[in-house]
Amino acid sequence: ASGHVDRFQDYMVKDLKNGECFRADHLIENTLEKMLTDKKVPDETKEDIRKILPTIDNMNKHEMGETLKKFNIKSPVTGNDISDPIDFNLMFATAIGPTGTLKGYLRPETAQGIFVNFKRLLEFNGGKLPFGGAQIGSAFRNEISPRSGLIRVREFTMAEIEYFVDPHEKDTFPKFDLVRDLKVALFSGTLQMDGKGPQEKTLGQAVADGTIANESLAYFLGRIYLFLVKVGIDTKKFRFRQHLPNEMAHYACDCWDAELKTSYGWIECVGCADRSCYDLTQHSKATGQKLVAERKLAEPISFINELPTFDYNYYLYSQFCKVNKGVIGKVFKTEAKLISEHLSGLASEEVDVIDKTLQGKGEAEISIKGQLFTLKPDMLSVSRFEKTIHVEEFTPSVIEPSFGIGRVMYSLFEHNFKTREGDEQRTYLALPPIIAPYKCSVLPLSNNAELLPFISQISRDLLNFDISHKVDSSSGSIGRRYARTDAISIPYGITVDFDTLKEPNSATLRERDTMKQIRAPISELAEIVRDLAQQRRTWDNILSTYPVFEQQESTK
Amino acid sequence: ASGHVDRFQDYMVKDLKNGECFRADHLIENTLEKMLTDKKVPDETKEDIRKILPTIDNMNKHEMGETLKKFNIKSPVTGNDISDPIDFNLMFATAIGPTGTLKGYLRPETAQGIFVNFKRLLEFNGGKLPFGGAQIGSAFRNEISPRSGLIRVREFTMAEIEYFVDPHEKDTFPKFDLVRDLKVALFSGTLQMDGKGPQEKTLGQAVADGTIANESLAYFLGRIYLFLVKVGIDTKKFRFRQHLPNEMAHYACDCWDAELKTSYGWIECVGCADRSCYDLTQHSKATGQKLVAERKLAEPISFINELPTFDYNYYLYSQFCKVNKGVIGKVFKTEAKLISEHLSGLASEEVDVIDKTLQGKGEAEISIKGQLFTLKPDMLSVSRFEKTIHVEEFTPSVIEPSFGIGRVMYSLFEHNFKTREGDEQRTYLALPPIIAPYKCSVLPLSNNAELLPFISQISRDLLNFDISHKVDSSSGSIGRRYARTDAISIPYGITVDFDTLKEPNSATLRERDTMKQIRAPISELAEIVRDLAQQRRTWDNILSTYPVFEQQESTK
Repeated sequence: ASGHVDRFQDYMVKDLKNGECFRADHLIENTLEKMLTDKKVPDETKEDIRKILPTIDNMNKHEMGETLKKFNIKSPVTGNDISDPIDFNLMFATAIGPTGTLKGYLRPETAQGIFVNFKRLLEFNGGKLPFGGAQIGSAFRNEISPRSGLIRVREFTMAEIEYFVDPHEKDTFPKFDLVRDLKVALFSGTLQMDGKGPQEKTLGQAVADGTIANESLAYFLGRIYLFLVKVGIDTKKFRFRQHLPNEMAHYACDCWDAELKTSYGWIECVGCADRSCYDLTQHSKATGQKLVAERKLAEPISFINELPTFDYNYYLYSQFCKVNKGVIGKVFKTEAKLISEHLSGLASEEVDVIDKTLQGKGEAEISIKGQLFTLKPDMLSVSRFEKTIHVEEFTPSVIEPSFGIGRVMYSLFEHNFKTREGDEQRTYLALPPIIAPYKCSVLPLSNNAELLPFISQISRDLLNFDISHKVDSSSGSIGRRYARTDAISIPYGITVDFDTLKEPNSATLRERDTMKQIRAPISELAEIVRDLAQQRRTWDNILSTYPVFEQQESTK
Repeated sequence: ASGHVDRFQDYMVKDLKNGECFRADHLIENTLEKMLTDKKVPDETKEDIRKILPTIDNMNKHEMGETLKKFNIKSPVTGNDISDPIDFNLMFATAIGPTGTLKGYLRPETAQGIFVNFKRLLEFNGGKLPFGGAQIGSAFRNEISPRSGLIRVREFTMAEIEYFVDPHEKDTFPKFDLVRDLKVALFSGTLQMDGKGPQEKTLGQAVADGTIANESLAYFLGRIYLFLVKVGIDTKKFRFRQHLPNEMAHYACDCWDAELKTSYGWIECVGCADRSCYDLTQHSKATGQKLVAERKLAEPISFINELPTFDYNYYLYSQFCKVNKGVIGKVFKTEAKLISEHLSGLASEEVDVIDKTLQGKGEAEISIKGQLFTLKPDMLSVSRFEKTIHVEEFTPSVIEPSFGIGRVMYSLFEHNFKTREGDEQRTYLALPPIIAPYKCSVLPLSNNAELLPFISQISRDLLNFDISHKVDSSSGSIGRRYARTDAISIPYGITVDFDTLKEPNSATLRERDTMKQIRAPISELAEIVRDLAQQRRTWDNILSTYPVFEQQESTK
């Protein structure tokens, strides 16, 4: 139903001699980029290439084939001739069951499960819109050439939200005010085609001037931005890029990618599309199940003795037409089932025509699969009564934020891998406390047995607050152990030293990025770390509350 | 490396006329069980069947074939003759990459990823044993006949722990005291073969009398039991069943299944095996990577000018033998690489023999792939010096608790689906608060606008404590809304009524299983629910602290 079996594909080309495969768009891009730096390539060709490069994502199969021929592109490995672009479906196929005849595929995205469950989710939400479903899990795409670490892999973790909205209300999203004044870098389709760069603009402006299609979509762009900033993305390496017309699925109104800059270039990490009512409509067509919501009509509408002329057919049908199977059975015998099913499947306008003919002529002729049958008035009773309609049905639109978790993770690693100033140039990983796997390290200054009970006490206190932490009681200078915890991005470190033995027991707390330390009573440390890790207090606040400590770091 | 491609299979039989497939063991079991209730089957045959039934899990392919013939078993659907048992690999196969020539499989368990990461995990734990890795995720098995709801499905969620222990220390597990006195129902292999039932026994006794192989395995059985009880399994519907010798993988020392009784009978929900060093050894063989840990020797061992006679080869090898590639290259030219690689790959005993020959005769002959080469003393230098060894290497044993999450979930639903006493016989789901998806409902007694600010306040307070909750402000009597929250297992319900408007603002708190209610200040409710949900306080404690409230439930 989703169309993936027919259309989820990339174009690939084959080395005509050894059969090696390449992704057509990547091959064009890489070859043209190399040509730009080649002194032998004439200037007018380079000019041409500069115009073509930003349009590659927009090319169809034919245009790719033409471009490959135009620049006489060969296999980059062997220099052999290559084939025209070939469709290559990216789904992994398998066979289900013992007979091997039932074909199945690994999901290439997590979204479809949410559409399949739409009716249940709507019911769970009391029939009200808007609401969203979210899912995280593995997805599988048979990439033609996986590469670039976590960036292009064949099995990856994906997280998707399908947020269902009334299409009449897409332009006035209730929570839009939360993000209206957020300024973000927007690289619209127009700017791309004009060869320009992204523009900073508030989301409110972007909706107002038509850059972003509607408030609902813009709201989720805002939330994506806030999420990425919260987990530690560098805002200077962030932009939203709009899909070009050919790049976008034909049913989508608008689609933007959150792109993050890495050493591999700008990488699409989160997509966000307004997919209109496409998915629910497709699933509905394939299954015959209605996947709709209801909206209250501003004015109720009444129908007296006639059928409504617009889209209430499905809803009202059972009220208007009853097939009399008994009579049909007696008259038509073995054909009766065929006729009954045909009548039950008619649209209400068609029933209306038959009914009026029956009333006028006393009989009506219908044709089923080329056979003619004559109906009598007692075979079909069409009730006509007053009916007041308070709601109308519609297929919700869906806004789909879709996160490539591995790509976000990879970008986080690059954006947060830092080097300290000074001679040693020590490196550390500055992940925000909220996503650092360990929030705190617990280190005895030495192996002295008197210090160990305090280590156990602190570890128990941290566990009580559900704070993940790592005790490192290995030998090695405290500076070396701090460096080790910095390398795995532990934001806070508690060190028990010989002053701890004095009453009241205290220990030091060090923050990873500033390397500053304070001294606080042991009984308060776990709560301080909890508040810091959950962003209830800032490190500045702690620094101004407790005495600063300045000795340990240099201790060898 | 794991052996799944060769051996992860079930036996199936085919209907010889229409090709329909059946799992052989299930077909035998179902047919024989039906025969037991068939009056036409003579008593001595029934006697025979009763002996055979408990041994089906223990049958190999040949024995299954014999049993099918002995009882003249036919297709249960058509009555047609069936084939002999056929091996059927349960893994889903697919093709990786664009050429379609690289075969891949969906993982049938999550465990192997942990073995592949063993070296990293050991390093992360500072080289020390014991330690464990745990993983949760989807696994895929191409079941011949999926059935019984969540019990036998082709895609399911699995959680596995691989706990690595020193085989010398398996019998004295440090934390065993935590579970030593736990009494559990143990259905040993002997009891099964003798046609008896399970026996209650403490884990300590079971290890002492040899029922369970060692303390490490018994410890994890204890933890599995405690986990299942904590999430809400009925202990009267629980037993550990030991695998029968043929049922158990040949390399496993001992294996037990936590079985839960459901309407489908006793279902294996968690497995726990001592897999000894099998997995690490297999991965090591397939990759040439050492997957070992080190243990400190009680006494260091010194070697002077000779090779150790036992298992230190690998460790010491590089200290003893150096191949002189320069000389070999000059003498043997194109064959040099072959010879150097051969020499580098020799075991130290082999090097020792060559070296002694070189020292004694001035040359040594070696044979590589049928070719003879003559070595001279300058081609190989073997250092002989005093070396003191403090550690020895060994391959850890692994204890593997393996959870079928869907099966545990299904059992939880059956064990906790309850009916209230009284005329209405209302049903409810009594999941323990710790796993109930929503911890609390928040209900206004009526749609009166004055009540709504309190609902928002309570909802914010609950969010501050990270407590998942559901607001139900739909119309419908409070009793009906309680019934609805009972059906989805919400353990606590806060109701805002008209007394709430009095100062100080209070609301009622209802507990699902007892249906008792108390009245407490709104400012304290979120914390009370947090403490209850996290098992910091009991409901009895709350009942004795706050005034009991007895009106609402009956309000229509």
